[in-house]
Amino acid sequence: MKLLEEKILSEGVVEGDDILKVDSFINHQVDPALMEGFGREIANHFKDGHITKVATIESSGIAPALMTARFLNVPMLIMKKQPSRILNKNLYQTEVSSYTTEKGYELCVSRDYLSEDDHVLIVDDFLANGEAAAGAMRLIRLSHATVAGLGVLIEKSFQPGREKLESLGLDVYALARIKSLEGGKVTFLEEG
Amino acid sequence: MKLLEEKILSEGVVEGDDILKVDSFINHQVDPALMEGFGREIANHFKDGHITKVATIESSGIAPALMTARFLNVPMLIMKKQPSRILNKNLYQTEVSSYTTEKGYELCVSRDYLSEDDHVLIVDDFLANGEAAAGAMRLIRLSHATVAGLGVLIEKSFQPGREKLESLGLDVYALARIKSLEGGKVTFLEEG
Repeated sequence: MKLLEEKILSEGVVEGDDILKVDSFINHQVDPALMEGFGREIANHFKDGHITKVATIESSGIAPALMTARFLNVPMLIMKKQPSRILNKNLYQTEVSSYTTEKGYELCVSRDYLSEDDHVLIVDDFLANGEAAAGAMRLIRLSHATVAGLGVLIEKSFQPGREKLESLGLDVYALARIKSLEGGKVTFLEEG
Repeated sequence: MKLLEEKILSEGVVEGDDILKVDSFINHQVDPALMEGFGREIANHFKDGHITKVATIESSGIAPALMTARFLNVPMLIMKKQPSRILNKNLYQTEVSSYTTEKGYELCVSRDYLSEDDHVLIVDDFLANGEAAAGAMRLIRLSHATVAGLGVLIEKSFQPGREKLESLGLDVYALARIKSLEGGKVTFLEEG
């Protein structure tokens, strides 16, 4: 998506060779009109997927997931992070290791809001190593629902997330695919 | 707002005499169309307030804040919670005591996204004791911006949040005002 690529080039901040900060329009300050455009684009890509729910992981996935769910006209489900495992029979729970914080967490979702009839689209802001999305997939599969795909705003294509998730059978769609951040310079993958 | 009151009566779950859970349409599963309606209503109430930014506290305020910001056509700012104080010169920081978790946290926002020219509307899901909103007010005032008001979905009017915030000069608007949850029964304040 050209608009997102341009925004990343003008406002993204590269730290080291693998961190991209987009705090001015996605992660800290959010541009709602832009986010609406992102949601429309992801919804459009998955419009024939018979999606019944959009799931995301708190908290930076909430904005794009909400807009995607609005366009698909389905509920949005916020998977919650807990610092440690608290057994709860009403929840589906799974352990996720986190690349950015180097601390793991427990991802969970209520059994009330996922059923075997659901086709669930996962939406998040970033795809890097794919740990969070893989955790979301495990939760959805615990409920015997169908994982319909993953839509993300920004994919760091030099990290193994997409490859790992595709090997698990996931349809991955990213609005911007970053080939490299080396030397502080953002390079995108060529389309097609 | 009649629609929200009806939704609370049909899907809200009362625990004890003071907890209301609205996990099926606000806090865990989110109804995007309903949230859009909430955002439109809050935006309409504050439409003459010269709002330049909508601020919220992660994570359950993000959905209503995003929709409100969309209708006001201004950026949305996510104030972040940190478990403990980490000094950072680029942040405005304040301590918040939390009623629901009984644990305090550090609320912070980047200095890059608030300036003295801003008129900031705070949006959150619940107003109870007002600790989070008071913390948001302190951050906004640290930046010398103007606090333009507080819009919440649900106010627990039997708790002291509104009174406290109004005494600090805040214009508080709630879509649903709950007079009592005693005996597991939701009673609303009469309008007007």
